[in-house]
Order: sequence, then structure tokens, then C-alpha cells
Amino acid sequence: MSVRWFSGERAVPAWPDHDRGTAYGDGLFETMRAHRGNVLWWDAHWQRLARGATALRLRLPDQARVRDEVNALLDGGDGVLKLIVTRGSGGRGYAPPPDAEPNWNLAVHPLPAVPTAGLQLRWCDTRLALQPALAGIKHCNRLEQVLARGEWSDPDVHEGLMLSQAGDVVSAIAANVFVLHEGQWKTPRIDRCGVAGVCRSWALDTLQAQEARLAVTEVEAADAVFLCNAVRGILPVARLGACTWRPHPQVAQLQRHLAAEHPAFATEVS
Amino acid sequence: MSVRWFSGERAVPAWPDHDRGTAYGDGLFETMRAHRGNVLWWDAHWQRLARGATALRLRLPDQARVRDEVNALLDGGDGVLKLIVTRGSGGRGYAPPPDAEPNWNLAVHPLPAVPTAGLQLRWCDTRLALQPALAGIKHCNRLEQVLARGEWSDPDVHEGLMLSQAGDVVSAIAANVFVLHEGQWKTPRIDRCGVAGVCRSWALDTLQAQEARLAVTEVEAADAVFLCNAVRGILPVARLGACTWRPHPQVAQLQRHLAAEHPAFATEVS
Repeated sequence: MSVRWFSGERAVPAWPDHDRGTAYGDGLFETMRAHRGNVLWWDAHWQRLARGATALRLRLPDQARVRDEVNALLDGGDGVLKLIVTRGSGGRGYAPPPDAEPNWNLAVHPLPAVPTAGLQLRWCDTRLALQPALAGIKHCNRLEQVLARGEWSDPDVHEGLMLSQAGDVVSAIAANVFVLHEGQWKTPRIDRCGVAGVCRSWALDTLQAQEARLAVTEVEAADAVFLCNAVRGILPVARLGACTWRPHPQVAQLQRHLAAEHPAFATEVS
Repeated sequence: MSVRWFSGERAVPAWPDHDRGTAYGDGLFETMRAHRGNVLWWDAHWQRLARGATALRLRLPDQARVRDEVNALLDGGDGVLKLIVTRGSGGRGYAPPPDAEPNWNLAVHPLPAVPTAGLQLRWCDTRLALQPALAGIKHCNRLEQVLARGEWSDPDVHEGLMLSQAGDVVSAIAANVFVLHEGQWKTPRIDRCGVAGVCRSWALDTLQAQEARLAVTEVEAADAVFLCNAVRGILPVARLGACTWRPHPQVAQLQRHLAAEHPAFATEVS
């Protein structure tokens, strides 16, 4: 199910000619959890979209209009809601047309299966390039993630951790990562690469975690590790290559905390 | 004018749902010069596309089929021919679907105006991230180029030179760069970022140029500078910030050489 808007007009199910999203990945996206017709963390998702629009100097559609379409599309249901906003159509060339109206697309997908036990992770060979101008925002230039996720097909490996070109740990491919060290939770800075995840922000506040440059050895020596994203919430990590972790009470407590705030995640608490 | 193929079927003028090009910039493109129905350097363009497909592990459409559509679309005319090939449709997630059929789009645009005098350049603030896994190929993750081209709107500035995050000179935004130093032509290596331009290859061979890491001072102190790409050929540079260059006989000779091989460029020789 999806609905699209091109240059302010509700569209037939077709993406327009010369869309800059298709040509250059010149756009932004948000992937959100919908539960009984509600979108969790809507304001935080829109704020990140707005930060991205400022960084890329592109226009966003009217938030209320998008919200109306979201409500109609969800119709009280559950799912993964994906919004893509591109700069719009125009220009055979990189120069961003100053008067371009954004094109946008909304789609609802089924919820992914959530592993009942902890996640099995691997280290990815593909590294994230250092690009402060694009760090933190959720833009549509995602070939690094596609290459990294293409490194394995074993269905028992759920996710991969990625390093930056400088060798520090940044995130999983589609989630942020937190590690516990001597009673202190830490998560990598996303000032040079990586995405400022919405669930990451919630966990940073809730755990009073530190943002830090994180070495591989700090992850491997952690007392507990979890991944998080806005669709799946808090995901305990059980294995990373040769390292294993047993369920940790602080991670289970965080899951209960999240489920208490957002009942969408209630069924996923172990 | 354009024609599109989705998963092997000739398509109505609509881009398909869940195309990975739109979602992630998960695709490749070529921008080619068409002259009297012929495409200059077709084989070199297709070879670069094939190198990109290997790097991204995506499938290409059948070359003969694309070529037939190109011929029909050009119908003996001139223009800029743009081919976009994406991995195809499928997957709400980064994992590249192994059985995806590519989506592709062909479009012809009018030829750009070629400045009659030398080009006026500027230095861009936006730097190119170091990413060897994507260097050289012409993929659709081009936000760095969009940001760089968005830095100015003065129509008297024709192009911008970009540095890598490491501080070396890489290329113009949509062209490669060559500099003359003590009788030796040099062009930046594109092993960490940048695009292996088709006209760059021709100029490398023709000039017996060197590939090198190039410092800003080496460009500013050059005896001559030109840009090149497959659409506009050899473009002498007249100014870069405070530096100026008079027309250089070796650049004029190279333009004549190119025009002799490819009459499309004959009208552009000064």
C-alpha cells in the first residue's frame, strides 16, 4: 500500500520523470513503527527529517498534509511506515533547482519478525566513509549499507556492525549500538558518519549514556550489548563473531521501560 | 524523451514501486554524447557500467537490447543521452535481493551550451569522502556533488573543483581535471573517491599523462589546466579563484585531436 505526492499533487502510482531521488539519491527517508493507527515518535522522526532538509537545503511537504495521508493509509492498523521525500524533479545536472517542489512517497509494510532470543551479529568488511556534511541525517545515499548487507546470506546472522574508515565502531547496518562498560552505557558518536536514530535518542536519554568513539575491543569486552531502532525497539545481542553475551538485567529493564511507554513493544519483552 | 524498462518489460512512463534506486541510490548511470544518432565512446561507457555492476553486484540489462532502444530514441539526432540502471525493485531493507531484475531508464536531453572562452572555476567547500569500495564507478549516490553544486548560483562560475577529505584535489563536480607541470600532464588518482571518466581515459592515453595525488598548490601553479567529460570534451580553464591562465597551445592541440577523432566536438575547437 502506498500513496505518492508529486509537486503538490496527489499522484497516480508512478514515480515522475527526472526525479532527483532516482538520479542522485537526492532525498531523505524515515522508517517508522505504526501501532493501532498511531505512529510512534512521530515528532522525533519529523524533527530528524527537518534537520536533513536543512542540511541538504531541500523543501519538505506540509507536515499536516503528510500526517493526514498517514492516518488514511494506516486506517488503525500496525506495520512499518516508510516515508521518502526527494528534492523533486528537475535539472539534468547536479545543481539543485531552487524552486523544486518535493516528491514524496508513503508505504506501509508488514512488521518484521523479532528474534525471540538475542541477536547474532557479524563484523562487516564494508566501512563507512567519513562525511560530516551528511552524518546523522537519514538521506537516500545508502550504497554502503547495501554493500555491507550483501556480505552475507546466512539467515542465522541477523545484523552486522560497521566501522568507519578511521576504524572506530559506528553502528549496525540498520540500527544503532549501545555497550555497557563498568556500569556506564556508551554509544558511538555520529558526527562523521552514521545515523542519529530516533530510538537511539530515547535510549541515550533514558540510560544517561555517553556518546564516544568506540574501539572494536570496547565492544568485544562489553558487559552487555544491544541494538536499537524505531521499528524494532531494543534488541539484545547474544553473539558477535566469537564473543557471546548472556541476557543482561539492565537490557531487559530497558525493554520493559520502552514497552511501558510504547505498548507496541510490549509483546517483544523477553 | 525517454524510455524505460522494468524487470525486462517495456514500461509505461512510470517508475516502479519500491525501486531501489529511489530508496537507496542503489544504481549506476552513464551520461553520453550523441551525435547524428551515434553514441561516442559507447564501448567505454558500457565497460564502466559493467565495472560498476561488478562492484555493486547488480545485474545489467542486455546490452544489445539497450542499444536498440538508444538507436530508436536518438533517431539520427544529437543530444545528451542518459542511462540509469538500478538494481531493480524489492526488499524493504538494505539486503540486495539476489534475483532482482534491473530497472532502467533512457532519456535524451538537449546539448549544453559550451563556453566560447575558457572556464571560470571555484574551489568547493564540500569535500569528497574516502570510499575505495565506490571509487571510480558512476553510481547514483551523488549527494556530495549536489551539495557542492549548490554552493554557488553565479552563472559566470562554470564549475567547481573538489578536494577529498584528505585534502588532495580529486576532480571537478561533473568533470575530471588535468594539469600541466614542467611538460608533464597529470590527473588525480580516483582510487579513493571520484569517477573514472570516459574522456579522462582518452586524455590519459593521448597525453601519456600521469595519475597522481595532486595538491591544491600544484593546480594553482600549473602551466595549463583543463577539465574533460564525455559530453563536452576538452574544456580549457581560464580562471580558478585568483589564478588565471591564458589559452595554452597543448590544450588547443588536444581539442583538435579529439575533434579529428570525434566530429561531434569539431564545432567547439577554438
